[in-house]
Amino acid sequence: MSEFVLHCFGESGNSYKAALMLELSGCDWEAKWVPFFEGATRSPEWRESVNEMGEAPVLEHGDLTLTQSGVILDYLADITGKFGGETPAEKREIWRWILFDNHKFTSYFATLRFLVGIKKFPENPTTEFLRGRVVDAYKVVEKHLKGRDFLVAQRPTIADFSLAGYVFYTEETGLDRGALFPAISAWADRIASLPGWKAPYDLMPTKAG
Amino acid sequence: MSEFVLHCFGESGNSYKAALMLELSGCDWEAKWVPFFEGATRSPEWRESVNEMGEAPVLEHGDLTLTQSGVILDYLADITGKFGGETPAEKREIWRWILFDNHKFTSYFATLRFLVGIKKFPENPTTEFLRGRVVDAYKVVEKHLKGRDFLVAQRPTIADFSLAGYVFYTEETGLDRGALFPAISAWADRIASLPGWKAPYDLMPTKAG
Repeated sequence: MSEFVLHCFGESGNSYKAALMLELSGCDWEAKWVPFFEGATRSPEWRESVNEMGEAPVLEHGDLTLTQSGVILDYLADITGKFGGETPAEKREIWRWILFDNHKFTSYFATLRFLVGIKKFPENPTTEFLRGRVVDAYKVVEKHLKGRDFLVAQRPTIADFSLAGYVFYTEETGLDRGALFPAISAWADRIASLPGWKAPYDLMPTKAG
Repeated sequence: MSEFVLHCFGESGNSYKAALMLELSGCDWEAKWVPFFEGATRSPEWRESVNEMGEAPVLEHGDLTLTQSGVILDYLADITGKFGGETPAEKREIWRWILFDNHKFTSYFATLRFLVGIKKFPENPTTEFLRGRVVDAYKVVEKHLKGRDFLVAQRPTIADFSLAGYVFYTEETGLDRGALFPAISAWADRIASLPGWKAPYDLMPTKAG
């Protein structure tokens, strides 16, 4: 068995945050597919024995079971010594962006992409509401990235991997990112150029395999 | 001037998380009112000079300016030695709940309460969607709190203060918390019984004063 086991599924950008970190850090890891669309994370068994929050990803490392992508990223940065903050100020800045990501940047986008891109719901007041919130959150990151290569430092950190969780998925969301947010798109290209980078569906399993 | 200055406003549960921690830790702090409903946090001046994320709370401590309630709580626990985690496992568990709070527990509830309780929007598909998400998130916390006094340890921690951010507000949201979530309500009562506890509008200023 590999040193790290990540419970994940290809469509999950939150899982991808952890998978990307494991891969780029050169960890010995394997993916264990979570049949999310078959209701796995909502089952009593999953909630009792794996994650009471009913979510993926879940990372197993020895006796430890960790959930929440932010906790997993922080843990991996600590034990690998890679992609973490080097000073207290950098560590705070990393958490600041991970929290903004969880609260707004990933949160609204992931929900919009789930409804529009995966569930194929027709346009409705909720998708419109979510898209407005996505644009507000993306504007904050777009402005921050102008003149910067990465979010927190001159090098990539786990903050970048957190916010990058959903930017490589191509399902429809009704947003033309390249036109609206060129700095975010250029930053995504920089992440995709890191040695060892892989796209979500090349790093994590789906039902199709 | 006080040692800590918290930019906040009474209606902001995210600000309340920080205000409650400052108060219960016995910090020398003062509140500086943010005219949120007059658009202060969306103004270019605020975004340039105070918080590019366009949000409250913001904490000033000496030369430091901190944003994101989770970062502020973690910082205050570190420097006061109060309400933080005592082991690496506790610290991870605290972050796990703060992240769940930012992603789901506070996030959906705060948006629902803003639309329904403050903006007084009539019921619509978006409020219905949000209320469904609130119920899902509240169920996770309800189940976790059954048989526990506090979220992470036998004592209150900053994780409790984070999730407690919005539970003391009484504006209408169309949810009968006492009937649906008795363990959450009992936990809120325990927090309200802590020495020095104050309700949001007694701790932070509003336009009315």
